[in-house]
Amino acid sequence: MSGLQPTEVDLAIDCDDTTRILHGFIRREVERTGRRRVVIGLSGGLDSAVSAGLAVGALGRERVVCVMMPYSSSSPASLADARAVVGLLGCDSEVVEISSAVDALRDTSPEMDRVRLGNVMARARMVVLFDRSELHAALVLGTSNKTELLLGYGTLFGDLASALNPIGDLYKTQVRQLAGHLGLPGPVLHKPPSADLWPDQTDEDELGFSYDEVDRLLALLVDARVSRAAAIEAGFAETLVDRVTRLVLRSQFKRRMPLIAKISTRSIGWDFRYPRDWRS
Amino acid sequence: MSGLQPTEVDLAIDCDDTTRILHGFIRREVERTGRRRVVIGLSGGLDSAVSAGLAVGALGRERVVCVMMPYSSSSPASLADARAVVGLLGCDSEVVEISSAVDALRDTSPEMDRVRLGNVMARARMVVLFDRSELHAALVLGTSNKTELLLGYGTLFGDLASALNPIGDLYKTQVRQLAGHLGLPGPVLHKPPSADLWPDQTDEDELGFSYDEVDRLLALLVDARVSRAAAIEAGFAETLVDRVTRLVLRSQFKRRMPLIAKISTRSIGWDFRYPRDWRS
Repeated sequence: MSGLQPTEVDLAIDCDDTTRILHGFIRREVERTGRRRVVIGLSGGLDSAVSAGLAVGALGRERVVCVMMPYSSSSPASLADARAVVGLLGCDSEVVEISSAVDALRDTSPEMDRVRLGNVMARARMVVLFDRSELHAALVLGTSNKTELLLGYGTLFGDLASALNPIGDLYKTQVRQLAGHLGLPGPVLHKPPSADLWPDQTDEDELGFSYDEVDRLLALLVDARVSRAAAIEAGFAETLVDRVTRLVLRSQFKRRMPLIAKISTRSIGWDFRYPRDWRS
Repeated sequence: MSGLQPTEVDLAIDCDDTTRILHGFIRREVERTGRRRVVIGLSGGLDSAVSAGLAVGALGRERVVCVMMPYSSSSPASLADARAVVGLLGCDSEVVEISSAVDALRDTSPEMDRVRLGNVMARARMVVLFDRSELHAALVLGTSNKTELLLGYGTLFGDLASALNPIGDLYKTQVRQLAGHLGLPGPVLHKPPSADLWPDQTDEDELGFSYDEVDRLLALLVDARVSRAAAIEAGFAETLVDRVTRLVLRSQFKRRMPLIAKISTRSIGWDFRYPRDWRS
């Protein structure tokens, strides 16, 4: 990979092919569980809109429920954008206000800063979403992209929790390509990515780099398995390479199940581990 | 395994050896993350008391925080039993009432039955416990045993969520042996196992079989890898073997991360998967 320029990393996807694969994935995995529907937490942002669009394409709009879960500090524009996505897709939707639940959880600890409050909000949404999935005999469809999953930029057992995740192997910039292909509304396509946990929060400010840049770097380090030296030679700043590598390393616990102490001959997570079925 | 009698399955553990291994596990894994302490949700039952006892043995009582999280319908005896465990171990403890948070979550859906409410309670406790772990720069220690994990008798992203689980490879009857060895209080040792989600709930009533029986069956099917026919020949009722096999199969999703659709050459959960470190 010596001499490779970072601009040469090609993150372009074939949107037709990708959509076809993801429709098949959603249809097959939902049917395999015997459930009929999916529920999706719709934030008004890009990722959940793409998940919802893929679900409607795979299952039909009558088998998709979008759940909007605003908190008192959420931007009203987010709810409006989520409604625009629902209008476009024509699926069912519900608005579940999480403010009283989040405030009750916040009040269990007087000294909660905004990062902890953000985690509480993400987890409260998970609780509501998984509960709605029981009500609707549905599966929870995930909305975390590969960039977030690799960087650990999400809340464990919160927004990272789902049954099936159709977009977890697509970088943010690739999710944006799919969003255009799906014809999602302009504001959803073009606004700065944000967790919307407090006013004016944006992902790129918080992370300190752009998705365009980090996606190309992650594609080199993770997908192309290039070394630190080769990534730097390819034009990425040493500090960025080291910072991103550290983020991937430090967030490994968010991509695995709780670590179980091995005692017996056949232990969960060690040698009793199946993609789906034991004895099938 | 033909001709094996079910009573011959030996679930006896060497409590000294097991304790030594689990102390090492807790110490090593906590130190590896750079955190100093652990937090444990103490229910008043056997499993969480054993996890707490192991943690105090591994780290010392000043590095263990037990969090008791009663709901309005929880048995007062549970809180008293949890306090007795804290008294015995001499570690720090906190009581965090979850009733207002759970009720606010319950009120997001008017038609919530007690099973769904039980899941909401388990998940609300997870939210509180992970939040306390940030406050204390601690890791959440898990309290799910191997029987529950294999049968799926627990709430995904609720009581099944943790950072480290020292008892996840011990069957319930083996956890009970350790509890005796640790000298836990009599009421904790001898009361019927219960999730305490509603009055008079007991695990064995709800499951329809005893831990003694199912642990021996699971040890045959899972650890000794015997066939259905051999388990029946060993004296287990056909209906029990089939029911338990079905429970293990149906709960596979609770023992794995959200399923991600594979698109790229290196995908999280497929070919990007590490016990702890990438590039270490």
